Amino acid sequence: MPTYKAPVDEALFLLNDVFHVEKFQHLPGFADATPDLVEAILTEAGKFCEEVLAPLNLAGDRAGCTRSEDGTVETPPGFKQAYRTFVSGGWNGLAADPDLGGQGLPYTLAAIVNEFASSANMAFAMYPGLSQGALAALVVHGSEEQKKTYAPKLISGEWSGTMNLTESHAGTDLGLLKTKAVPQPDGSYAITGEKIFISAGEHDLAENIIHLVLARIEGAPAGVRGISLFVVPKILIEPDGTLGARNKVSCGAIERKMGIHANATCVMNYDGAKGWLVGEPHRGLAAMFVMMNEARLGVAIQGLAQSEVAYQNAAAYAKERLQGRALSGPASPEKPADPIIVHPDVRRNLLEIRAFDSAARAFVVWAALQSDIAHRSPDKAEAEAAADLLGLLTPVLKGVLTDRGFENTVKAQQVFGGHGYIEEWGMEQFVRDARIAMIYEGANGIQALDLVGRKLAKDGGRAIMALFAELKSYVAAHEADADITPYIAGLKQATSHLEQATMWFMQNAMAKPDNAGAGSYDYMHLLGLVALAYMWARMAEATVARGTGEPAAKARLLTGRFFLDHVLPETGLRLARITAGADTMMALPAELF
Amino acid sequence: MPTYKAPVDEALFLLNDVFHVEKFQHLPGFADATPDLVEAILTEAGKFCEEVLAPLNLAGDRAGCTRSEDGTVETPPGFKQAYRTFVSGGWNGLAADPDLGGQGLPYTLAAIVNEFASSANMAFAMYPGLSQGALAALVVHGSEEQKKTYAPKLISGEWSGTMNLTESHAGTDLGLLKTKAVPQPDGSYAITGEKIFISAGEHDLAENIIHLVLARIEGAPAGVRGISLFVVPKILIEPDGTLGARNKVSCGAIERKMGIHANATCVMNYDGAKGWLVGEPHRGLAAMFVMMNEARLGVAIQGLAQSEVAYQNAAAYAKERLQGRALSGPASPEKPADPIIVHPDVRRNLLEIRAFDSAARAFVVWAALQSDIAHRSPDKAEAEAAADLLGLLTPVLKGVLTDRGFENTVKAQQVFGGHGYIEEWGMEQFVRDARIAMIYEGANGIQALDLVGRKLAKDGGRAIMALFAELKSYVAAHEADADITPYIAGLKQATSHLEQATMWFMQNAMAKPDNAGAGSYDYMHLLGLVALAYMWARMAEATVARGTGEPAAKARLLTGRFFLDHVLPETGLRLARITAGADTMMALPAELF
Repeated sequence: MPTYKAPVDEALFLLNDVFHVEKFQHLPGFADATPDLVEAILTEAGKFCEEVLAPLNLAGDRAGCTRSEDGTVETPPGFKQAYRTFVSGGWNGLAADPDLGGQGLPYTLAAIVNEFASSANMAFAMYPGLSQGALAALVVHGSEEQKKTYAPKLISGEWSGTMNLTESHAGTDLGLLKTKAVPQPDGSYAITGEKIFISAGEHDLAENIIHLVLARIEGAPAGVRGISLFVVPKILIEPDGTLGARNKVSCGAIERKMGIHANATCVMNYDGAKGWLVGEPHRGLAAMFVMMNEARLGVAIQGLAQSEVAYQNAAAYAKERLQGRALSGPASPEKPADPIIVHPDVRRNLLEIRAFDSAARAFVVWAALQSDIAHRSPDKAEAEAAADLLGLLTPVLKGVLTDRGFENTVKAQQVFGGHGYIEEWGMEQFVRDARIAMIYEGANGIQALDLVGRKLAKDGGRAIMALFAELKSYVAAHEADADITPYIAGLKQATSHLEQATMWFMQNAMAKPDNAGAGSYDYMHLLGLVALAYMWARMAEATVARGTGEPAAKARLLTGRFFLDHVLPETGLRLARITAGADTMMALPAELF
Repeated sequence: MPTYKAPVDEALFLLNDVFHVEKFQHLPGFADATPDLVEAILTEAGKFCEEVLAPLNLAGDRAGCTRSEDGTVETPPGFKQAYRTFVSGGWNGLAADPDLGGQGLPYTLAAIVNEFASSANMAFAMYPGLSQGALAALVVHGSEEQKKTYAPKLISGEWSGTMNLTESHAGTDLGLLKTKAVPQPDGSYAITGEKIFISAGEHDLAENIIHLVLARIEGAPAGVRGISLFVVPKILIEPDGTLGARNKVSCGAIERKMGIHANATCVMNYDGAKGWLVGEPHRGLAAMFVMMNEARLGVAIQGLAQSEVAYQNAAAYAKERLQGRALSGPASPEKPADPIIVHPDVRRNLLEIRAFDSAARAFVVWAALQSDIAHRSPDKAEAEAAADLLGLLTPVLKGVLTDRGFENTVKAQQVFGGHGYIEEWGMEQFVRDARIAMIYEGANGIQALDLVGRKLAKDGGRAIMALFAELKSYVAAHEADADITPYIAGLKQATSHLEQATMWFMQNAMAKPDNAGAGSYDYMHLLGLVALAYMWARMAEATVARGTGEPAAKARLLTGRFFLDHVLPETGLRLARITAGADTMMALPAELF
């Protein structure tokens, strides 16, 4: 069975040495997060994930969720107890508003804990994870009464939340959705329709489930401008806050799917269910984006998380498994064969994962900090700059961390040879689980389009210009820093490729938008590589500053050099593909495919 | 449920227009394969695969194989009948020696039929597929009596065959295997040991199963020089050829695995089973390689096959599924949305697969022709040159076609969005099934090492030099051919990258073998890209020669241009990684991973 060890020290290194969280004491919650407290929290979270969640992962995959005739859904053995432990430990409300019962600690901390939980048991972590999106939508767009009714229970974890967007004919294109909302005399709406792919739509972990549902108010305009957001509790809430009658929403089926078997993916039937409008009528999309952006960062973390746990197990296996001899002569002549970690190609697989994991974790922390600043800073300019950067980086994080995260689970599986294909070793589960992250919350092609079609041009390109300024000022400040010369050279080269690609879009995509569409995926990955290179430079800088004597420091610098040598050169290929343009992509008539 | 249409016309184009099989009439069996007969055979094979095998694929995955307490294994519903139809149609012995009951047709034809069957139902196709490896070992290394006893039944399909190599502690490193063979007074051996991962090790399709087993004769030297090959029938054969007593070999368990659920992957227990030596004592590895090379080409075909069937379904879905609008303005204004094939990034996914499938099929046909020439040509020089080329290309085919084939199933799945993750759509099965092809018959890292460590240097580099000569003479002959200028330019550039990489190994890997190991995987893929570019050039040439009016011709040339623009630039990245060398790959001490 696979094992998991939470990378607490690496997280602390990022918080303290790379991003200097102590500089953010002007943000609410950060002053409380003293270094000692942070270390205690991460250590405790790591322990819970290692000891409680990880051991349930393989068995949960095999058992899956079970729906009974009456529409109830049972989670795998052990999940209920683990969920109780999770919420009673206060993990659900770590970063939530203290006025609503949360602990008010930095979201950055919650993001790190989320990585640990998603590594240990992705299907489990999705249950509380979905609640966060629902909570965010209610907090930002809900009425005071809605906030008071739902937020404390979502924060405590007594209730869980869902996001109901997709219909069978309306996935990416929400403008096509048909679920309808009919106004009722009491101010509520009767919601009718069928939603599919609803993660955690029904289960036995929480006493109530709060569905956030996109629907069209009778008579609303067609398309996305006619969509509204509703809150639809599974069990209606009495005026005194206690649970009342069952609402007319039920789970019609759970999907049989490739992975995350322990998370119930539900078809949800709304048969005149009672719901209440959240925010303005016909402005559901804006509210939905609050949930989505929250969720997209969570999905990016899943990509990293599966990559990390797969790496740990592959590295352990490579150090134990004896097959063949080193090319340079026997490394363990006393044994019948050498451990396979002596083979360069095994190391290549492991280092490609490792070089990603370290930098991707830094990328997540960097982005999470922007989220904290954007939401909490009293300084408007600072908050706006952070929101700009986060908006630009969110599709990159989602697309790149899940694509590369998935590829890394495949590489880790490969290290196991035939054993990697067998269920009991658990490596193939990481592959199957990681695969969904490339699809849900906006398939990665949509992330690329969001980046190139929306985020790049937004506010006259303010965000990407600010990013270039940050990268260049970093390069300028460190170009003479002999300790990290190759990192700065690599970052400079990669940034130049990104600039050339951006310029190419400016020159070629105005008149012909397909040129932007054709290069969007490569651009997303190019920007991702630049971000990872930036993270490596900053990690190298911080490592040198702290001292390179420790084994972890040595390992970090050697891994970073591999990134520069073997991973970063990909930026050139991405640029070449972007500048190849749309011609050969669009030429083939649809009927000839 | 996914569907499948065998690409008969594309195969005929390759045979007739690109490779001109009519020029090979000096090879036994080729004169019989008239154009009409070939077309009839491929059409019939396609029909069988489309109508019989494909409909069993999804259900077979879900049902899997079932082992009973007594060790018998039941295949999924419909498999027995389909197997009977398959063998009664003579498909099993298409290319086998007529003296042993085969039809003696070109192996090239069998390879194409194998693609069709593996697309339609990979798990099914493995049952007869495994027999081919066992048959090849017996034909090449078996005694006359062994050939007479086993070959006709393996060719007719009444019996099936297996390859028993792996033990739990000995996968890649066969020198470690422990299964022992004790000589018996009657000239047979008593075989004792446990083999794992035995595909088709036990099932209910054939009346007998002929196991080819690697074992160590008592007192044999340690390592690979002490391994011998044995033939061990499941049911012993009486002197008159009828079936006798049950041999002491049985299936102890079947593995629960990621995919190919409908093929039984068995733990095989040998408890003093009666076996007979095949070939010389202690020379089992040479005999094993006969099976392996046959099997590796078969596995390469699986990579292509899964890519092709995944493509067909994704392309069909992309033409039907309505979501969003084209960037250049509505393409189907009368519909609520445009089919997603209008979106550049959807086309990118599809074209990357399509550009691979066409060229990979050509690559397979090219290699299969070398196999026919190597085995059948009366001209020794011609046979040797073909064997050289086939030996060089086999690891490339296996590694590159399965890596890219798997990646392509992932891309095809992505086109389906959330539906791609749901079992009933069948796309996720292609991903799970394709994944094994990167692992078995030598994990792809081993293929890369075989290529760089063995095949490149063999006979003083004769094979790679001959390949360069062929590529250069092709480029020289067509450089002035205005119709295919970009293809020739692309091939020339890619070949130059391959030459630089080869030269770099010569200069840097002699003194430091890790440099070869570190670059081996990229070199395998670089050579694969060159081969695909060569195939594209030859297909473009043949398309122009035949006339570019037909839709298929137009589609082919447009797809080829996409390959040149968007896929082939990868050679530069591969070269950069190779020349980065082993330093950063080997520097990190094992304990720090």
